[in-house]
Amino acid sequence: MELIEKYENYRKLIKSYRFALSTISFDAQTVAPKKSAKYRAEMTSILSGELFKINTSDEYVEVVNELFNSRDELDYNLKIEIEKVHKDINRSKNIPKDEYIAFRKISSIANNKWEEAKENNDYNIFKSHFKEMITYIKKFSEYTNPGEDIYEVKLDDYEEGYTIEKYDEFFNYLKEHLVPFVSNILSKPVVDDSFITKKLYNIDKQREFVSYLLEVFNFDLERGLLKESVHPFTGGTHCNDVRLTVRYLEDFLPSSIFAGIHELGHAIYEQQISESLVETNLGTGASPGIHESQSRFYENVIGRSYEFWQVHYEKLQSIFFEELCDITLDVFYKAINKVQASLVRVEADELTYPLHILIRYEMEKLICNTDISVDELPDKWNDLHEKYLGVRPESDSDGILQDIHWSWGMFGYFPTYALGSAIAAQIYYKLDINLEETIRNNDIKKINNYLKEYLHKYGSTKTPRELIKIVSGEDFSPEYYVKYLKNKYSKIYDIR
Amino acid sequence: MELIEKYENYRKLIKSYRFALSTISFDAQTVAPKKSAKYRAEMTSILSGELFKINTSDEYVEVVNELFNSRDELDYNLKIEIEKVHKDINRSKNIPKDEYIAFRKISSIANNKWEEAKENNDYNIFKSHFKEMITYIKKFSEYTNPGEDIYEVKLDDYEEGYTIEKYDEFFNYLKEHLVPFVSNILSKPVVDDSFITKKLYNIDKQREFVSYLLEVFNFDLERGLLKESVHPFTGGTHCNDVRLTVRYLEDFLPSSIFAGIHELGHAIYEQQISESLVETNLGTGASPGIHESQSRFYENVIGRSYEFWQVHYEKLQSIFFEELCDITLDVFYKAINKVQASLVRVEADELTYPLHILIRYEMEKLICNTDISVDELPDKWNDLHEKYLGVRPESDSDGILQDIHWSWGMFGYFPTYALGSAIAAQIYYKLDINLEETIRNNDIKKINNYLKEYLHKYGSTKTPRELIKIVSGEDFSPEYYVKYLKNKYSKIYDIR
Repeated sequence: MELIEKYENYRKLIKSYRFALSTISFDAQTVAPKKSAKYRAEMTSILSGELFKINTSDEYVEVVNELFNSRDELDYNLKIEIEKVHKDINRSKNIPKDEYIAFRKISSIANNKWEEAKENNDYNIFKSHFKEMITYIKKFSEYTNPGEDIYEVKLDDYEEGYTIEKYDEFFNYLKEHLVPFVSNILSKPVVDDSFITKKLYNIDKQREFVSYLLEVFNFDLERGLLKESVHPFTGGTHCNDVRLTVRYLEDFLPSSIFAGIHELGHAIYEQQISESLVETNLGTGASPGIHESQSRFYENVIGRSYEFWQVHYEKLQSIFFEELCDITLDVFYKAINKVQASLVRVEADELTYPLHILIRYEMEKLICNTDISVDELPDKWNDLHEKYLGVRPESDSDGILQDIHWSWGMFGYFPTYALGSAIAAQIYYKLDINLEETIRNNDIKKINNYLKEYLHKYGSTKTPRELIKIVSGEDFSPEYYVKYLKNKYSKIYDIR
Repeated sequence: MELIEKYENYRKLIKSYRFALSTISFDAQTVAPKKSAKYRAEMTSILSGELFKINTSDEYVEVVNELFNSRDELDYNLKIEIEKVHKDINRSKNIPKDEYIAFRKISSIANNKWEEAKENNDYNIFKSHFKEMITYIKKFSEYTNPGEDIYEVKLDDYEEGYTIEKYDEFFNYLKEHLVPFVSNILSKPVVDDSFITKKLYNIDKQREFVSYLLEVFNFDLERGLLKESVHPFTGGTHCNDVRLTVRYLEDFLPSSIFAGIHELGHAIYEQQISESLVETNLGTGASPGIHESQSRFYENVIGRSYEFWQVHYEKLQSIFFEELCDITLDVFYKAINKVQASLVRVEADELTYPLHILIRYEMEKLICNTDISVDELPDKWNDLHEKYLGVRPESDSDGILQDIHWSWGMFGYFPTYALGSAIAAQIYYKLDINLEETIRNNDIKKINNYLKEYLHKYGSTKTPRELIKIVSGEDFSPEYYVKYLKNKYSKIYDIR
């Protein structure tokens, strides 16, 4: 009992540092003045250092190890938590501290260089730093999981239980069924969305509509907030303080609407985690893949459905009367579901999105598990893009330099984006309520409650695989995803 | 040298906690959702505890003491800093830790009870907690400064070098010259300000005008920001991150304008402190009195001057055309300088304001230096109010319960408000630029630069008394304040 108390005190202490760092980061991303960055960087590096010290202190490691050794005597949640913490600790403690500090520094430089390289469309600026990052990632994997397959270790970092074998199966299935389907769709007449791309939409009015969406989706503003930031994200520290941000682009209305609903999916998930988990380390979403399944469910399955706009298009029209008064619901619906062979992932439509991820998955496997030179990567990227999407990027900024993730050393994260969409589709087919009718009745609360009961409330007390079984009644299967996409887009593009 | 390095590492560490706590507090006051309070309270209490531990750790205290003992060998700024830190440390280290923790708890309860008491206009709810707070304050003073006069200790806590003797002299002078003058003014015909009190002013338009003021006053938005909060304040962590807030009241336009300019005074001071002090503990305003002298200078001497509105009234009229188009500059100027025997300090005009402080000064002396019972305090307050302002509060909420300060255990702070106004007047008479002309030329930057050079840049490297000498060429004297007030209000109220 004394051991548990000791652990709980450490947990509280660690949580207080995380709380501070999270608040500082939110402040930095939403309001902090431009020239405050340098001072903040110094202060947060000190606080992070303190946190690292606690996390790797002999006493804490010993407490966790002892509890781990007697974990079968602990109650269920604590056992799960200790297993997770034990895994984390024993990974990081094998990395020599000076190498870890060196990596942090290099990663910060690599991140800056990536930004510069992308801005100047010049891969050479980033290349040597990229190489250094890859070397570190491989070395660290050797420290933490000696002898194991590197990409396997990275994948497991983010989505426990999702191995290369499973992902291969998943992506092969997508390749087989989606690549030809997409190619067929792209041969159809192009949907006219000029009312979106050729018009400006007043930002104050966009704000009004996003406020309306917060109500529609029953986001609890006493336990969360909405702000603006350059890159939309969902943050916060526990279920009673969940924070989402959006970005308003005058020349692209869908950005605030669909990124807004996407972040609302993340945010509602976090708000609906059982309050009893607040004190623990289990009071957050289960994994990136499960989190993304919720954001994609809200964004795409609900937010891009015909039924949703049957109810809410009138409101949008009333706010943007001049711009939308002669655009019918059908035209609007087709425009927000327009399929395009785009070059940029974050602008991709729902159907081609997983193919963008497929490219990254194959790239990451090459980078982590082979000795491919960084010189070869840009061409390799472009080849894959052309192969799966039929267009070839003409610049590195739209190709190998497109995403920020690798400059942070994040390998193995991308696949969770596609996995999340696929899980969302599986949930869609297995829901025990009539989704279309519920959306048409404007009763999103009913959907929230359902997902709370069968998924959200559990927080991290279950593994991703357990959660899929609870919410859908069976193991993960990619078939639902392909079925969902083919069904939806066959109708829109009139394919039999 | 090694000692200095040790000290500097501690300083950085301590600053990182302060940075975290300050960011969390700003977040709490401006954006955090309502129901996040409980979790935040727990997290910040842990972080504060960590900070307290460092501040009182044997090693740190020893480092400071050693540096203090050889302070004459240190360079000027470090010597000043060590003297300050040494004083702080040696005060707090004499308070037994468990009593300090008990006090923190009691003060938090007392603060809640004060709020409840004020809301319900019932002093009894607060009384016993107030008594407990007073007992602690007296006991702590005995720990930190055994045998010394308690109110003397409290005054020195906030404004070094300002003793009871000096304050007595100051307040007696105000009493002698202002009380009869105010009474004379109050017998004059009442100024008509119904265009302010009887009209509503759209809040978005108020925001527009406050934005305009930020430009007029040259507040640097790359090194600071403006937000909204229930109680306006200025915060931030260093000269490159200065944060002011205002509050917008639809039914009282002057609130956002003058509280805005007031906070701008605090904020410009902080922004203009020498950047070379960022790493030190001297990169903040010198004292509450000096800080208030700047906020009052900007708010009253500049912001309520005729010249200021000669330049800017047209802008205000253009924003609130309907409300102000038939209000002349003269009528507006008189209205924003209307003298009233009000009951509430924060709503008081520039002339009667120091009398509100006089009441609190005499109350605090009684509370700290006599055994007066808490039962007698409400009547005592009302007596003093009647004596100096000619009206008697009819409720405790407008009387003894009016301000939050005492519920926090802050005794000795109020006098700095009046002192600040008096210093502002002294600066006004001693400025080496033609203020009226500069204001009429809309060249506030010139005033900022002047005050930067003769006051702001020094941060806390000089004592309040030294700073007054630098900026005005002589020691503090209350005569300028009375002269300034009599001169200004004699003109407005046509008194010879």
